[in-house]
Amino acid sequence: MFLYTKNFNEQRARAMEGLRKALAEDKVDHDIIPLLEKINALDNYFTTSSCSGRISVMEMPHFGDKVNSVWLGKWHREVAVEEVLEAVGRHNSGQLWFLVRSPILHVAARTMEDAVKLLNLAVGLGFKYSNVKSISHKKLLVEIRSTERMDVPLGENGELWVDGYYIERIVGIANAQVRRFKGKLKRLEEEIKKLSNAIQSFP
Amino acid sequence: MFLYTKNFNEQRARAMEGLRKALAEDKVDHDIIPLLEKINALDNYFTTSSCSGRISVMEMPHFGDKVNSVWLGKWHREVAVEEVLEAVGRHNSGQLWFLVRSPILHVAARTMEDAVKLLNLAVGLGFKYSNVKSISHKKLLVEIRSTERMDVPLGENGELWVDGYYIERIVGIANAQVRRFKGKLKRLEEEIKKLSNAIQSFP
Repeated sequence: MFLYTKNFNEQRARAMEGLRKALAEDKVDHDIIPLLEKINALDNYFTTSSCSGRISVMEMPHFGDKVNSVWLGKWHREVAVEEVLEAVGRHNSGQLWFLVRSPILHVAARTMEDAVKLLNLAVGLGFKYSNVKSISHKKLLVEIRSTERMDVPLGENGELWVDGYYIERIVGIANAQVRRFKGKLKRLEEEIKKLSNAIQSFP
Repeated sequence: MFLYTKNFNEQRARAMEGLRKALAEDKVDHDIIPLLEKINALDNYFTTSSCSGRISVMEMPHFGDKVNSVWLGKWHREVAVEEVLEAVGRHNSGQLWFLVRSPILHVAARTMEDAVKLLNLAVGLGFKYSNVKSISHKKLLVEIRSTERMDVPLGENGELWVDGYYIERIVGIANAQVRRFKGKLKRLEEEIKKLSNAIQSFP
């Protein structure tokens, strides 16, 4: 069981329709679009969601409560210290965090063989946290993810626990992480065509 | 393909021998031992590695360079501010980080069906980053992992960027994360017996 996805082509068509809409509404991170196009040009895969990686400043009632979180600043690129300070200045209540998240792509695969092939390619290119996220007849989902990450508490309920010098330091580290994962995305974009030779074991 | 693991019983026997040795040498986190025992009592699974989750203070030449990293302090439990300050006081060179890592278990499964069953159980109990880490005829490996995590830069090359008040604050947040993931581990230990009814599709 779980060897291939039922109704793969129908799911693929629906996902591509959703992506076209998101692109038209400018809801997709620009620098990941060429990679999405290359993956979606392959018969045995389609993308279901993606983020090109980001630096953000976030306010949340407590750690992990995503529902009630508010972004005070979010950037899919290297960031200037002033931009972060400005976002921090808007802090009002809850816990204040400075976060870095690696790129993340969810890719549906037609067969288990296709899933494993993509997984191994991604891990080999430095996306070491990649994995098969869910497995069923309805979905074989590969998650492509890298190791770069920061979770830094900055303050709470309007009180700041750090100074401008500290924020300057962590912005420097965060920007180095961004440069690193952007490089990995570029290499993945270059190497993704290797998957086009996948043998289609299932029609 | 990839429906079941070849030589599962032989692999299992070798892994159990390794675990016995690690236990005898006191190299396994104590509070995860009952869970490991319960998983390893099941015919269709065996554990290959585990960590019960931890708070640590680490020095590394740059982020991600695990090879040259040095732990200045490491605790698989809630920690006192004084312990962290003492570890921070030993900082000398490289980047200084305060880290929280969720529990992580690697569990080999006999069949893909067994792997999916364990994956779904773990995700349902709050181990939301669980996944199938590697898939081949040689190994079907489920990774059980939760969301708690902190990556906080504290200083560099002997210079501290934060004060004692900040460390007190982040220790409070870290201890709350430890309480949360310990609770999840306990629930997993209670629920793991549900897997014993797994149908053995492959001999």
